[in-house]
Amino acid sequence: MPQIIRPTDSEARTLARNLLAQARHGVLAVIDPDTGTPYAARIAIGQSPEGQPLTLISELAQHTRALHADPTCALLVGEPGPKGDPLTHPRLTLLARAEFVTRDSDLHAHLARHYLTTHPKSQLYIGFADFSFALFHPTGAHLNGGFGKAFRLTTADLTP
Amino acid sequence: MPQIIRPTDSEARTLARNLLAQARHGVLAVIDPDTGTPYAARIAIGQSPEGQPLTLISELAQHTRALHADPTCALLVGEPGPKGDPLTHPRLTLLARAEFVTRDSDLHAHLARHYLTTHPKSQLYIGFADFSFALFHPTGAHLNGGFGKAFRLTTADLTP
Repeated sequence: MPQIIRPTDSEARTLARNLLAQARHGVLAVIDPDTGTPYAARIAIGQSPEGQPLTLISELAQHTRALHADPTCALLVGEPGPKGDPLTHPRLTLLARAEFVTRDSDLHAHLARHYLTTHPKSQLYIGFADFSFALFHPTGAHLNGGFGKAFRLTTADLTP
Repeated sequence: MPQIIRPTDSEARTLARNLLAQARHGVLAVIDPDTGTPYAARIAIGQSPEGQPLTLISELAQHTRALHADPTCALLVGEPGPKGDPLTHPRLTLLARAEFVTRDSDLHAHLARHYLTTHPKSQLYIGFADFSFALFHPTGAHLNGGFGKAFRLTTADLTP
């Protein structure tokens, strides 16, 4: 789809914030520490009570090892529905740095309480010793609002 | 989801090949040439008549610029359906090198004829001067067949 960059407007900002707020899963792009090449994995996405994007991931996953080696990453959110052309469905590529949260901390407990309301099935594994939260600190974003509707967003655009 | 790597069996190979053969879109992970950091974008995915994965992308897109600068990439295929836990839905991370196909070539015409049967809506833009095919040459793959079902596949595993 052609990506002529449009001037960011309030509609684009609202769309981007909604895509982040509503995300329950997405695709993480990282650098594989073994090869130095790009790697992609589907991960769960949630939000802190304050609205910051986060994930709950296992230390056993390749992408978790990658984030420990280099926390610079991208996160694609905005899943196409079962109907219509998936490439016209709005999506956001968040550019971010991941920060792991110590499991035995007040912050972990704070995040876990909220996460269980948005991801009730995570009750099955949230207590496993290899699972922890990683918060995403945005550094920018690319919004694709559909055919020909591309925007470059700043971190200020992403926060109300 | 924990990712203890299992020995590759024929079930895993079949699942991986089916995910690739059935993909109509997916998520591409590349290195952003402007920043040197990971970047992710949803792209259309098709197959050559011989079964090789490919995409039809615009020169105007950031991820296309990235592939020209460094063709090493990853491609996540296997989209979760509207029902069930999306993280238990099988998906494949293909590690690959992208090779662009010259628009004015017999290979382009050969790919276009088949692509239009799997992506009929691309008729709207396949003729645009900025759109071309890129073939993905696999170098390996990570298969996640659901909770605890992780496999590392070779290129031989991916081809019947």
